[in-house]
Amino acid sequence: MEQKIPYKIYLSEDELPKQWYNVRADMKTKPAPLLNPGTGKPVTLEELSQIFCTELAKQELNNDDAYIDIPQEIQNFYKMYRPSPLTRAYFLEKALGTPAKIYYKFEGNNTSGSHKLNSSIAQAYYARQQGLKGVTTETGAGQWGTALAMACSYFGLDCKVFMVKCSYEQKPFRREVMRTYGADVTPSPSDTTEVGRKILEEFPGTSGSLGCAISEAVECAVSHEGYRYVLGSVLSQVLLHQSIIGLESMAACDKYGIKPDIIIGCAGGGSNLGGLISPFMGRKLRGEADYQFIAVEPASCPSLTRGKYAYDFCDTGKVCPLAKMYTLGSGFIPSPNHAGGLRYHGMSSVLSELYHEGLMEARSVEQTAVFAAAQQFARIEGTLPAPESSHAIRVAIDEALKCKETGEEKTILFGLTGTGYFDMTAYQKFNDGVMSDYIPTDEDLAKGFAGLPEVK
Amino acid sequence: MEQKIPYKIYLSEDELPKQWYNVRADMKTKPAPLLNPGTGKPVTLEELSQIFCTELAKQELNNDDAYIDIPQEIQNFYKMYRPSPLTRAYFLEKALGTPAKIYYKFEGNNTSGSHKLNSSIAQAYYARQQGLKGVTTETGAGQWGTALAMACSYFGLDCKVFMVKCSYEQKPFRREVMRTYGADVTPSPSDTTEVGRKILEEFPGTSGSLGCAISEAVECAVSHEGYRYVLGSVLSQVLLHQSIIGLESMAACDKYGIKPDIIIGCAGGGSNLGGLISPFMGRKLRGEADYQFIAVEPASCPSLTRGKYAYDFCDTGKVCPLAKMYTLGSGFIPSPNHAGGLRYHGMSSVLSELYHEGLMEARSVEQTAVFAAAQQFARIEGTLPAPESSHAIRVAIDEALKCKETGEEKTILFGLTGTGYFDMTAYQKFNDGVMSDYIPTDEDLAKGFAGLPEVK
Repeated sequence: MEQKIPYKIYLSEDELPKQWYNVRADMKTKPAPLLNPGTGKPVTLEELSQIFCTELAKQELNNDDAYIDIPQEIQNFYKMYRPSPLTRAYFLEKALGTPAKIYYKFEGNNTSGSHKLNSSIAQAYYARQQGLKGVTTETGAGQWGTALAMACSYFGLDCKVFMVKCSYEQKPFRREVMRTYGADVTPSPSDTTEVGRKILEEFPGTSGSLGCAISEAVECAVSHEGYRYVLGSVLSQVLLHQSIIGLESMAACDKYGIKPDIIIGCAGGGSNLGGLISPFMGRKLRGEADYQFIAVEPASCPSLTRGKYAYDFCDTGKVCPLAKMYTLGSGFIPSPNHAGGLRYHGMSSVLSELYHEGLMEARSVEQTAVFAAAQQFARIEGTLPAPESSHAIRVAIDEALKCKETGEEKTILFGLTGTGYFDMTAYQKFNDGVMSDYIPTDEDLAKGFAGLPEVK
Repeated sequence: MEQKIPYKIYLSEDELPKQWYNVRADMKTKPAPLLNPGTGKPVTLEELSQIFCTELAKQELNNDDAYIDIPQEIQNFYKMYRPSPLTRAYFLEKALGTPAKIYYKFEGNNTSGSHKLNSSIAQAYYARQQGLKGVTTETGAGQWGTALAMACSYFGLDCKVFMVKCSYEQKPFRREVMRTYGADVTPSPSDTTEVGRKILEEFPGTSGSLGCAISEAVECAVSHEGYRYVLGSVLSQVLLHQSIIGLESMAACDKYGIKPDIIIGCAGGGSNLGGLISPFMGRKLRGEADYQFIAVEPASCPSLTRGKYAYDFCDTGKVCPLAKMYTLGSGFIPSPNHAGGLRYHGMSSVLSELYHEGLMEARSVEQTAVFAAAQQFARIEGTLPAPESSHAIRVAIDEALKCKETGEEKTILFGLTGTGYFDMTAYQKFNDGVMSDYIPTDEDLAKGFAGLPEVK
């Protein structure tokens, strides 16, 4: 029996999760192992520890432990901005005239503006535990860089962010937020790394790319004593940390007798979606409950819906291990026309395997339809959503409208990963009616697939 | 006996206030009445209703009712983003090494980024109740304009915002947020009003001023059938709506046995400070409890600490009624060097009277010290504060450090009115070490005082 559901459900501090959930432990077929690109063999802990903090490398390779304790200091930090509210979208339901019940887990109520902080604080914690001086990373849109800057500031770690040059110039405010938290932000490509200098020589005046920024960040980490590289998505360790989203959501649902029928999340590298669905997927894998899971990706970067399930490089610079995943090829670069994040060529190995097994669906949506949903949501539910999050809103609204047609009272839960305050250039395009859609042709995709590495 | 205090106290929906509190009812000396600038006599309800919605004009003149019911639709809207958390600043206390207990009421967790939404939704509600087509207003930094755009969008009202031209150009993102919520944003001065055309003719190429934008907004309202003008601060009706901040704070404090010794808020026109302290001040006025109240204003615009208590125009354009208040003169324009809001020449009549009677203190602080506090707070407590809010943070930290010296375990409560995501230009100046302070000379102030109207 359902209780009266408030607009927002906040768990009490005592109800907050004290362990992360590792969905790999409940998967019958584990995600395929990361491979050393040189040897073609599964990477060892020792190899991974050259790039990542040792404890994080262990988490990356851990397919067995279902629950991992959240260190007390991370729990404390989580209390700074968590629990995030599980919100009943009463206003949206009414506006749509749907019998569906819509809930969203809102992760934007912190200065990084997204869920990214859930993992950055964990990664910074383990870096400090290891006695490191600092960490390096890349950032495109800037949410991950901001989240990492905040986490490093908290633990007194040096934070070197390589920010794609065009973003560095077009998003000076994001850059300043990072600097306010003490991060060192370098436009990429830069002359501070060998790979950066090489690219600058080859392509003078280039505005950079995420792939190049990753390569610079990795080089910077391995060439500086006491530094490691950290990454905000794709990796299994990141999904582990992000399981806090799903665990809180599930606790709030259980507390109020809410049983989601459909769970929806946007998917770039998979960190939010993986975090949101993990504990629910665990129940499904254990046969305790059933849910329909929907990953939503942009039609301009359709790794799940049009990609290949194959081993590929995680980065355009080809310095990271190979991962088996749904991918468009590490050379695939989405149209600059595309406004938000979710531009990653691949997808988390964990989610890729779940999708491959048919345990999760995927849909691709076009940009103008996404911004129409974003505007509608902003006006009805108040919060101005990030373009990334709005992919999930689009499909949640579509599903709610289907219920209106069929009369089904489905319960829909979606992840609202963040706010769009730093994405107003894209909103302006939409407001001015000059936003357009882009769908890669089969020929475009073929070029990306041609670059897939051969793995024996 | 104090209970264990969580990091964040969220009231449950049942505990949310159902009435606003009107501190004027408990004041022995009421704030001086608004005067009609033409006749020099107290404005009548009929006169006020030409500019403002009738119900709001009634609230403006209501010195007697201590509690006013919050209409159910506004209560519903409040649930979209309220309760706001009362946060225990455990991290800040630890970092400062103070025995003081620090709490802050955070009003920034909504898309307008500040407490302004508390009043804009009320003003939009009454406008719709009156059957109006729309409302007009001015905005400088853009928080009020955004809050009004959100409220009007919710109630399907037309929203015409006159945005100071330099802000319109320098803060395109704020403008786009307003447009996303369907507001019509016009750079001021514009050729859409008589006063705008006159100013453009006299000062071609001017970048505008708040005073000019007010004059255009008022002209636009009175010259369009079915429109009224609305204002986001200074007025007693606004303090009434903002009392939701103090009422929630008091309920949370009472629930956990917290007894604030010092209550601190930043003060521009006084909407946040007035809202935060009202119910506590009520207890003080009724002799039920005692608190130290501190208004914090910028040294560059020191209306309480260096202003005169006199009748003055509320706007530079001299179209609004005269109010008795602490003022620097309606012709006083703070240095453009000043980064945040809080640039208003006067102060709420209610707060002015309370200050005049010695029931509240005031302090002025300099800009670089404010940003140093802002940066410190961001790094320690996570949230990037608005420059306005950071005035309160500065004094809260100063008071906590005094406790460190004296060993006193005072309980400090301050208002964190909003976030600084749209103020990164100012943060950049601070990050780059090129921010400077500005304190007006006595001669500067004398010029403003010279423009005070004579009132018999």
